[in-house]
Amino acid sequence: MNDPLLRNALAEVQTDVDSRFDSLLPVPDDARARLYQAMRHAAIGGGKRLRPLLVHATARLFDVSREAAGRVAVALEAIHVYSLIHDDLPAMDDDDLRHGKATVHKAYDEATAVLAGDCLHALAFEVLADPATHPDPFVRAELVADLARASGPAGMAGGQAMDLAADGGSFDLGTVTRLQQMKTGALIAAAVEAGAILGRVAEDGRRSLRGYAHDLGLAFQIVDDLMDVEGDEELAGKKLRKDGEQGKETFVSLLGIERARAQSRLLVDQAIDHLRHYGREADLLRAIARYVIERDR
Amino acid sequence: MNDPLLRNALAEVQTDVDSRFDSLLPVPDDARARLYQAMRHAAIGGGKRLRPLLVHATARLFDVSREAAGRVAVALEAIHVYSLIHDDLPAMDDDDLRHGKATVHKAYDEATAVLAGDCLHALAFEVLADPATHPDPFVRAELVADLARASGPAGMAGGQAMDLAADGGSFDLGTVTRLQQMKTGALIAAAVEAGAILGRVAEDGRRSLRGYAHDLGLAFQIVDDLMDVEGDEELAGKKLRKDGEQGKETFVSLLGIERARAQSRLLVDQAIDHLRHYGREADLLRAIARYVIERDR
Repeated sequence: MNDPLLRNALAEVQTDVDSRFDSLLPVPDDARARLYQAMRHAAIGGGKRLRPLLVHATARLFDVSREAAGRVAVALEAIHVYSLIHDDLPAMDDDDLRHGKATVHKAYDEATAVLAGDCLHALAFEVLADPATHPDPFVRAELVADLARASGPAGMAGGQAMDLAADGGSFDLGTVTRLQQMKTGALIAAAVEAGAILGRVAEDGRRSLRGYAHDLGLAFQIVDDLMDVEGDEELAGKKLRKDGEQGKETFVSLLGIERARAQSRLLVDQAIDHLRHYGREADLLRAIARYVIERDR
Repeated sequence: MNDPLLRNALAEVQTDVDSRFDSLLPVPDDARARLYQAMRHAAIGGGKRLRPLLVHATARLFDVSREAAGRVAVALEAIHVYSLIHDDLPAMDDDDLRHGKATVHKAYDEATAVLAGDCLHALAFEVLADPATHPDPFVRAELVADLARASGPAGMAGGQAMDLAADGGSFDLGTVTRLQQMKTGALIAAAVEAGAILGRVAEDGRRSLRGYAHDLGLAFQIVDDLMDVEGDEELAGKKLRKDGEQGKETFVSLLGIERARAQSRLLVDQAIDHLRHYGREADLLRAIARYVIERDR
């Protein structure tokens, strides 16, 4: 990550997200202490914070307060973290390691992991619906609708269900693309959309941002598949090469490494091209798109 | 249930909730079919629908459209159903039977049960935030805030975490009361509050309804504890006497059967007394309160 604009923005967002989770999750002096500790274990000090960064980067195109963007960013991240906790469960992907730490069901127990995920899920909507997030209730209701759609059966959770059904392969490129657009693309798109909602951008103006988010989300997933094949487990902080072991079809298994890499570059160029009507204020969004393929080195 | 007012209202609400879940959960023609079937298995055709009934019964005190109350009612019930799916998981209460049917992880599998719960959770907020629920975004945002608070770490899920921590007893009456107010009371209170939000009732007017919901919720839980000790498993459609086996403290273990029963009756009288400023329009709320102790026979 050589771009100082991106490096500084990312550092700022990571600090802001951690500090907001810290305030939102004070450990109570009762039998729920373990539940809150588990939420803090998963939510604080881990992850790239890509989705919060996208909220901030989109919000800066418009005249959005940093407080509003910060609250929406932490709500998006709460949904992302809850989904990781549940995806890591033994009954799901059965992972022991996440962001270089023990997963929640390993560090605590399965019941606590289920409930910690459920609590972060509810917390996200509580934060969005709070008048402190935005004075206009129309904006708050739209943010809730955006996030609920993106995380439910037509989005993230639906994509994860398709992914589980895919064990053993048999999906073609069209199906894998749709699956990944739901599983990871929907929440990435929701982050950009949330920035536009905060900016009160009209339907017309959202089209180019949606194009950006769509192409970015796919590029991100293709690079994730490449890193799963070529990456270093120590650096990734999680178990790799699980898709291959389980015989799951991915962009890499379907396209091959070279075509997958070319496709991810094409998508990033397309994503950046969607921003052509914006000036320097969109440089952070452009830097994020370039960073997505830069990870794959 | 001898009261025709209650009997008719309950039958109507049960039909309405089933029909709304049926429309909200059309089985898609892709790899998510199993996920949707699992959601339908849990959501359609089971349960007393007490929370939806409370939304409708409170909404009828004010000039609320049946469509608005119906959408809010199904959202509340989606949260209740998701919590039952997750609570029944092997890592949590490990139950095989719910409403006389196999639990979701038994009829499908654990991963599907986790995701079906997560999807119903997201769906609840999607329904509430949709303009079809209420034209005023302030009302929609308030409904979301109400339900998110009641179902998160300070409400239902937090109560369930305390309950898990309680294995082996040691909680006193004050702690059990607080635990139950969170675990079941919060969502019952949220149902009544949602009716008041739809009715645009000012803070002052909500106080008596909150008193009603508070006392009703506690009475409900005490009767649940009584039925767990005295009830018939076949009639209940679920496993009973688990609290005693696990050595958990309940209202019955702490108060004894006779004092617990007297307490539940006192609470129902109090609940009904909170409605004294309402006329015949509150008869359904009164009938619900009486029904709560009538179950215990």
